[in-house]
Amino acid sequence: MTSASCMQVPIATAQAPAHATEADAPVAGADPCVASAGIVGGSGYTGALLAELLLGHPSVKLAAVSSETFAGEPMQQHLPRLRSDLAFCSQADLGGVDVAFLCTPHGDAAPIARKLLDDGVKVIDLSADFRLDAATYNEWYGEHPHPELLPGVYGLTELHRDEVAGADLVANPGCYPTAALLALAPLKQFGLADVIIDAKSGVSGAGKSPKATTHFCSVDSDLVAYGVGSHRHYPEIAAGLASVTAKGGYGSAPSALGAAPGAGPAPSLTFVPHLVPLQRGISETIYVKPATWPLPTQGDLMALYEQFYAGETFVEVADAPPALKDVAGTNYCRIFPHVDARAGRIVVISVIDNLMKGASGQAVQNMNVMLGLPEHEGLV
Amino acid sequence: MTSASCMQVPIATAQAPAHATEADAPVAGADPCVASAGIVGGSGYTGALLAELLLGHPSVKLAAVSSETFAGEPMQQHLPRLRSDLAFCSQADLGGVDVAFLCTPHGDAAPIARKLLDDGVKVIDLSADFRLDAATYNEWYGEHPHPELLPGVYGLTELHRDEVAGADLVANPGCYPTAALLALAPLKQFGLADVIIDAKSGVSGAGKSPKATTHFCSVDSDLVAYGVGSHRHYPEIAAGLASVTAKGGYGSAPSALGAAPGAGPAPSLTFVPHLVPLQRGISETIYVKPATWPLPTQGDLMALYEQFYAGETFVEVADAPPALKDVAGTNYCRIFPHVDARAGRIVVISVIDNLMKGASGQAVQNMNVMLGLPEHEGLV
Amino acid sequence: MTSASCMQVPIATAQAPAHATEADAPVAGADPCVASAGIVGGSGYTGALLAELLLGHPSVKLAAVSSETFAGEPMQQHLPRLRSDLAFCSQADLGGVDVAFLCTPHGDAAPIARKLLDDGVKVIDLSADFRLDAATYNEWYGEHPHPELLPGVYGLTELHRDEVAGADLVANPGCYPTAALLALAPLKQFGLADVIIDAKSGVSGAGKSPKATTHFCSVDSDLVAYGVGSHRHYPEIAAGLASVTAKGGYGSAPSALGAAPGAGPAPSLTFVPHLVPLQRGISETIYVKPATWPLPTQGDLMALYEQFYAGETFVEVADAPPALKDVAGTNYCRIFPHVDARAGRIVVISVIDNLMKGASGQAVQNMNVMLGLPEHEGLV
Amino acid sequence: MTSASCMQVPIATAQAPAHATEADAPVAGADPCVASAGIVGGSGYTGALLAELLLGHPSVKLAAVSSETFAGEPMQQHLPRLRSDLAFCSQADLGGVDVAFLCTPHGDAAPIARKLLDDGVKVIDLSADFRLDAATYNEWYGEHPHPELLPGVYGLTELHRDEVAGADLVANPGCYPTAALLALAPLKQFGLADVIIDAKSGVSGAGKSPKATTHFCSVDSDLVAYGVGSHRHYPEIAAGLASVTAKGGYGSAPSALGAAPGAGPAPSLTFVPHLVPLQRGISETIYVKPATWPLPTQGDLMALYEQFYAGETFVEVADAPPALKDVAGTNYCRIFPHVDARAGRIVVISVIDNLMKGASGQAVQNMNVMLGLPEHEGLV
Repeated sequence: MTSASCMQVPIATAQAPAHATEADAPVAGADPCVASAGIVGGSGYTGALLAELLLGHPSVKLAAVSSETFAGEPMQQHLPRLRSDLAFCSQADLGGVDVAFLCTPHGDAAPIARKLLDDGVKVIDLSADFRLDAATYNEWYGEHPHPELLPGVYGLTELHRDEVAGADLVANPGCYPTAALLALAPLKQFGLADVIIDAKSGVSGAGKSPKATTHFCSVDSDLVAYGVGSHRHYPEIAAGLASVTAKGGYGSAPSALGAAPGAGPAPSLTFVPHLVPLQRGISETIYVKPATWPLPTQGDLMALYEQFYAGETFVEVADAPPALKDVAGTNYCRIFPHVDARAGRIVVISVIDNLMKGASGQAVQNMNVMLGLPEHEGLV
Repeated sequence: MTSASCMQVPIATAQAPAHATEADAPVAGADPCVASAGIVGGSGYTGALLAELLLGHPSVKLAAVSSETFAGEPMQQHLPRLRSDLAFCSQADLGGVDVAFLCTPHGDAAPIARKLLDDGVKVIDLSADFRLDAATYNEWYGEHPHPELLPGVYGLTELHRDEVAGADLVANPGCYPTAALLALAPLKQFGLADVIIDAKSGVSGAGKSPKATTHFCSVDSDLVAYGVGSHRHYPEIAAGLASVTAKGGYGSAPSALGAAPGAGPAPSLTFVPHLVPLQRGISETIYVKPATWPLPTQGDLMALYEQFYAGETFVEVADAPPALKDVAGTNYCRIFPHVDARAGRIVVISVIDNLMKGASGQAVQNMNVMLGLPEHEGLV
Repeated sequence: MTSASCMQVPIATAQAPAHATEADAPVAGADPCVASAGIVGGSGYTGALLAELLLGHPSVKLAAVSSETFAGEPMQQHLPRLRSDLAFCSQADLGGVDVAFLCTPHGDAAPIARKLLDDGVKVIDLSADFRLDAATYNEWYGEHPHPELLPGVYGLTELHRDEVAGADLVANPGCYPTAALLALAPLKQFGLADVIIDAKSGVSGAGKSPKATTHFCSVDSDLVAYGVGSHRHYPEIAAGLASVTAKGGYGSAPSALGAAPGAGPAPSLTFVPHLVPLQRGISETIYVKPATWPLPTQGDLMALYEQFYAGETFVEVADAPPALKDVAGTNYCRIFPHVDARAGRIVVISVIDNLMKGASGQAVQNMNVMLGLPEHEGLV
Repeated sequence: MTSASCMQVPIATAQAPAHATEADAPVAGADPCVASAGIVGGSGYTGALLAELLLGHPSVKLAAVSSETFAGEPMQQHLPRLRSDLAFCSQADLGGVDVAFLCTPHGDAAPIARKLLDDGVKVIDLSADFRLDAATYNEWYGEHPHPELLPGVYGLTELHRDEVAGADLVANPGCYPTAALLALAPLKQFGLADVIIDAKSGVSGAGKSPKATTHFCSVDSDLVAYGVGSHRHYPEIAAGLASVTAKGGYGSAPSALGAAPGAGPAPSLTFVPHLVPLQRGISETIYVKPATWPLPTQGDLMALYEQFYAGETFVEVADAPPALKDVAGTNYCRIFPHVDARAGRIVVISVIDNLMKGASGQAVQNMNVMLGLPEHEGLV
């Protein structure tokens, strides 16, 4: 793209359409771009969505997208929605961008991040490589290749904005932990004795690679729990809860879970994800036994959440169970807190678009914070 | 139908097809039918499916299906899958059948049942009219028109087979309670201190009447919790739990919940249903804190369930989370019990087809028991 | 909204969020808005999407949205995705906008348009009220209340750009005709002897009002043809074809169909729409027998289409059958022309998002043209 | 299975359930089984469905199901719906059955059929290996390994019943050709000058192997044409049309297409299949220009179809566009013929379940004919 404009206009328009009027001409003047961005691994769901978001970003220019498989081929050939004339490059040719997004499998991201950081590039990693402390990572994923980088700044923007602002390496949170931790953070004052997260995710969370479990005839009209007791987002949620409740640094051992000041032991935590027949979205219904009593009233609970998230662009407190449609295609998290007085419990329902607030959208949000841009730029 | 055969053959065949061979001729001989059945309210989902099942039943003849809206019109005109030449009749013309299924809204069923019982017809009611004791019914539904009939025999076949066998009036269970109570019954020996039922249901559970919430564009690609804290299956589950755990008569007050001998107070119970974008099926993930300790091992828990349901045709114990597809279109309930040692909890996942085991299939199962027929006849 | 910015920022941001940085402040300076817009009938699919598009438009301010049902209530209460603090107004209170979009049923739109035009408001009507000449309208819809306004300028932007630019009243095309006429227009030089349009539409095309035919359980896993031989888009397509092929004024009688200069009689036209289980999108496979021979080669046909649409932002010529995903949520029409030499036919496949290019998106495109704005503003 | 009953009862029941009553006991008496059946390739969609159908067949016993991948493992472990205690065997161990179904890829089936036929086993092949004459097969699939077997008896039961009855080798038709040829056969008296088949298929038609094009996120909310001009069912349809119209032997060269006595040249034929987001079902809308005139009236056309299929169990003539739901899970084909007088055309809409009438169901139907059993046995 040779356009002076940062918000990259559709190709045809940029090519001086036959029918174009004066008003179609690119606005002359200063380049509004404050930074250039690159994507490592642009052919998967998160990479492609990042490219779509960055192509529409008013202040950041998408300079390069790598794909080892498709290097040298036009992006639009493989991703018709990307109305850009960029071609995929090789990862080695990504150099020179101000900020890089890593959309590679865990394990692959760490060495790439190491090299980019050494070259002075800010890194936002969408894999799991920088979300955990070394001991926990090693337990769940195997030995970490670059433990000296652990833990990265945990990029759950609303809870870690100040750290993200100054970071060179941000660990973009997992989709399930994002929805869960935003839902639970306001409850820290009660302490969390017992937490159950019943999560339902669309299929894009399982990635683009074809598998028996993602075949249309397997998913459609079906619903199945998976990873019961063994899903790798469990330790991330546990660590996040520890961070939320203990106000300790993120990434500390789950043994500190739920240690609200003087509130006693860590919460028991159960996390059961389910695959549901839809493409995008996560809905979590979370059942909480507080450590301290009595339960708040419904009114007090609503007020607590509204106050906690006052001024936040991308977190909404709802007074009824939210639908995935309310947030689909957006960076919003929508949360409904509910007092179940009969059972002595708080129920919180939290929904996000797993590819937006749960991945690429939050990554752009973090980039905006890192670059000092308005946090909502390029996002809906 | 004038066919002597009870398993009603497809219309065209019965009409002596031009191409029929000798082998197509109905088998001469004794009428295999032992009873005739009628359906009140045949145009909704459960009524239509009952008709489809009964048309294929080898020992029971579908004699009449009523629909006040369509009385006098051929069934197949409105329900093309019903390859029968029956016409809808008015409810008043249902008389003379041995057993009647009521597929009417709650409140409407009770007076119809009263009249049919007085006429000597066995009744299986698929509404909520006979599932609760009078006090609980009045609290959740308004005043019951025929409290003298309460409670009916609760037709959760596997748990109440003997009572069903001798009953004239069976209250066919709700879909959510069926999946929940079959999942929880084997745990009664532990006592149930705390029970959370996170249920996901297909859209047919919401009925056939078009509503904003059942519009395709509302349901597709979406997922939403509803009836949080107020769903009418809550008291039915609570009463069933009391029955399961206390071995007391079904329908007693929820205050006796979970009173396993010497186990202390009733369990706290939370039930949150969710609407998912599929037509048929209920999946419930149930989180249980037992009243007594220690937790069983995974092996002991599996053995407990297998023993509890040994010999049952329609309950399967699975060693992995079951899929809705495993039971779709069938009368099976498939249950996966799991020990979550980390959190000190038992997780049970239970799936059924809400229209089959959760409604029409279980109704036929109950009919078979009431008539002394093989329990699986006419069912898959 | 009191924001000086035309591109209305998310509510929370506009309310000076607690965490806002300097960069979040609305940019001071000249008001970029060149016009204000209103929507009549904002609670249906097209109205809600128009509101969503206009809230993000950089140069036009959404000033009012009417809904007789919800007048006085906050839009976001009924449409959570509309992150605006506008409340629905009554249609009578819409006054003072520069341009109004009518999203009302046919028949209702005409008198509203009459009044708005008299008040000097430009009108873009999304109903069928101004798409046909009076005789054809009367035949298919009944007597037109304001025949003096017929026909409006037919707002198929790419084919009628100049007329739209100068129009006060634009008839926004129907969804099926949009996809069909864009696909067929480049073939005018051959003449069109015989045209068959096999169209598949998502359910949003049937509107938001719940009906038996739009119930999830009716649509899901199903596919059905409807309106065979009687769909009201037939005369619109026929008139459009006449316009395309004869270069005569749009809206003339179908009897002039296909009259390419010297090419003989009108084409025979068959249009069969099908309802498919998805929310948004129309795909049409169109079978054409040209009036003149020989058939072009595949290469010549591709070149013809590429040349015809050179410079157009929103029409793409594809070299393989396009997917709905390529255009979902966008204003693009994607067209694949194919020579079926074996059968002596041209097959053209055309896809659009029925709510975008087929309704609200094209309406914004037309507004941009009417206001002299860049044609793609506020659209993706 | 040691059950004397041919209709294999559910496992638990067969194992003498603890709660079983007298009525549950298998009926003593003569073995109703008249034949034993085997399936080669039981792990795909058609093989698994065949197993499900045969397990419920009243007169044929499923004796063996082979799967090279899963040989030795219980079927139910991989196919939970198959409530049988059979284990997969190797193909070499299939011997001794009376009839074998081949559910293998084309090319693999022919040598297996050769061997089974030599061993005196009747063969029903669900691949394409025996549907075409040698020349056509070689052109579309490559050289046939056993041309001496070509062509097999084409098992479109309603049109070839007598040949099927006496056959040892039946070529079970493809799904698209089944729906098309049943729809077109009654029109033979007019001759077919021009035929366009716009077909929409569910995803199961693409097979169980995971591919990018069958990923849930690729298929859901999408619709795409494929194989335009190159689908391998084209020559099968063309050959079938020749057979239908010329009354010549099936499998003759397409050059004879449409040669109704004295009707002139072969029809031009276009076939465009589309993938739609549903699992099972094919709907074809077929546009026909007859060779002879005038067009029949709508009443005459209906009468023609009803007469043509009078007495057929599995073909229904409908007076409105049929829905996939009308036939889903059944062996029925439902056909709506329509006169489009305005365009001088006949439009026929035909729906089947692609896995039932389009594959496994019709295979059972053919088996019944071959064995002299009632044609509908074991089918719905």
